[in-house]
Amino acid sequence: MGEFELIGRYFAAAACARVGGELLQGIGDDCALLALPPGEHLAVSTDTLVAGVHFPDPCDPFLLAQRALAVSVSDLAAMGADPLAFTLALTLPQAEPAWLEDFARGLERVAAHCGIRLAGGDTTRGPLCLTLTVLGRVPAGQALTRAGARPGELLCVGGPLGAAAAALPLVLGTSSAAPEVAAPLLAEYWTPRPQLALGRWLRERAGAALDISDGLLADCGHIAAASGVRLVIEQARVPCPAPAKTFLGAERALACACSGGDDYRLAFTLAPEHVAELAREVWPVSVIGRVEEGAGLCLLGPDGDEIAISQGGYNHFAEPSAERPAAPRRNA
Amino acid sequence: MGEFELIGRYFAAAACARVGGELLQGIGDDCALLALPPGEHLAVSTDTLVAGVHFPDPCDPFLLAQRALAVSVSDLAAMGADPLAFTLALTLPQAEPAWLEDFARGLERVAAHCGIRLAGGDTTRGPLCLTLTVLGRVPAGQALTRAGARPGELLCVGGPLGAAAAALPLVLGTSSAAPEVAAPLLAEYWTPRPQLALGRWLRERAGAALDISDGLLADCGHIAAASGVRLVIEQARVPCPAPAKTFLGAERALACACSGGDDYRLAFTLAPEHVAELAREVWPVSVIGRVEEGAGLCLLGPDGDEIAISQGGYNHFAEPSAERPAAPRRNA
Repeated sequence: MGEFELIGRYFAAAACARVGGELLQGIGDDCALLALPPGEHLAVSTDTLVAGVHFPDPCDPFLLAQRALAVSVSDLAAMGADPLAFTLALTLPQAEPAWLEDFARGLERVAAHCGIRLAGGDTTRGPLCLTLTVLGRVPAGQALTRAGARPGELLCVGGPLGAAAAALPLVLGTSSAAPEVAAPLLAEYWTPRPQLALGRWLRERAGAALDISDGLLADCGHIAAASGVRLVIEQARVPCPAPAKTFLGAERALACACSGGDDYRLAFTLAPEHVAELAREVWPVSVIGRVEEGAGLCLLGPDGDEIAISQGGYNHFAEPSAERPAAPRRNA
Repeated sequence: MGEFELIGRYFAAAACARVGGELLQGIGDDCALLALPPGEHLAVSTDTLVAGVHFPDPCDPFLLAQRALAVSVSDLAAMGADPLAFTLALTLPQAEPAWLEDFARGLERVAAHCGIRLAGGDTTRGPLCLTLTVLGRVPAGQALTRAGARPGELLCVGGPLGAAAAALPLVLGTSSAAPEVAAPLLAEYWTPRPQLALGRWLRERAGAALDISDGLLADCGHIAAASGVRLVIEQARVPCPAPAKTFLGAERALACACSGGDDYRLAFTLAPEHVAELAREVWPVSVIGRVEEGAGLCLLGPDGDEIAISQGGYNHFAEPSAERPAAPRRNA
């Protein structure tokens, strides 16, 4: 199968690659062309997933495609942006029809769910690696950044944390669990759901926001640094999913929720009156702390004492450490 | 060196990563933010370069960065777009300061030359691989595509062809030449110059346009197919650079010009009156043929006889063939 045939059969023919809406020109020319509605800014993010580093190799291509696109779209949610289009750079050791078919199906599924179109990309031969660039639109001046947290705001997260990190031994096949425990954990790892509607609701309301990829503590550290504030997190209020507690026990599940990463749920700061409004509109969010004057992070234990924070999250290119598992890594 | 330190030291600190103009938010948040001037469309293109496939490994990182960015920006030139910003996904086996410093310098040089800003990206650990996504802007309705060639137009190219293909044995170290021969050929390979000003001039004038990456014949085949026309190319009018002729002899230099690829010069179709206008404005372009009713490509030899076209250009994932060199491959 030639490169052009591969693109034509598996990607250009996909429903998500159809020209329409803001996508004026898709796959097949030197560039794709997009229209951006007046008064809107463009949000852009690029993420790479390397086989054996960010995901086990081999793995199910249907799940891999879903995870890759969802992780990328999550960065749009974190800015309060609406998805427009994405490009896919796919490097493959060889072109296997069955693999490509499943991969394209996974991509299509998340693309349809998120309302994003495949605008173009590149297919090359080499060690398996994917780079996705997502493009979104956000009303001018309303993008959510990490820099706007204000003292007096509450710190919230968009749902339970730690399931994807808890799932890692299951993903890597180094551990097993009963299906009713394993299934929801594996689903969190392979098919994160970008919180697009929450991101949209937070525009003009949240002080700061991001999606949790490096781990709650590391990412809250990013908000504190970018905003020039101190974030106080009450550990007892960090929501842990039941299957993680069943699988790992309460203590290790809490460690996953605080430092695990790969959650792709939003963390954000919000004035108390907006939190009440959010609760009325029944978003499953949790208040886990508050924004104060100062700098850095403060993690409070159940007795109100400060807990020392050792290792916040994952960092590529850091020297290997015995504490860190040889496991798939996070994408920012 | 940690991932954030790497990004901060070599990329976020680069002059080309400075926020300004249309780049509202650069490296450091979940997404970059861009403003698109009213009445303009966004042009997007993604290219991957894999070590050992698209470039020799090891190679000079200063040259690699220049080539990677120039090749990507060339796709904007091919659409008549003005560069806005790019993202860089860089996968590296290890973080070597000297390598990164040289790479960042190369990127900076081409970015400054083309007026494009580094908006964001991803750094990951793995086999050396680069994916660049370039974003440009073009007045609504004025983008140059492959689909607009009209019978009666002349077929032109933006300069001599084949130097990069002729340089391959020098790049791979399988051959050598006197410095005055080698230097201009290697420069064409490592530092292609995107024809941005020519692309801009061609807006609303050219019928169809693209940048030659797969080779003149293969790429003209793309124009013929997309436009539903027949392109007639007079082989004797295809411009060959003098150093390629000195290095390879006239016949092999001509083969490089017709099928070599990696030229990153524009090929376009233009009405005769515009060709005269272009000549007056002293662009170094060559008329090499014409657009006719019909389909496909026709290559005419010096005696006016049609020459059979066997192998147009490079195609990833095609079965290996003895004709094709085990050499770096082209990016579309």
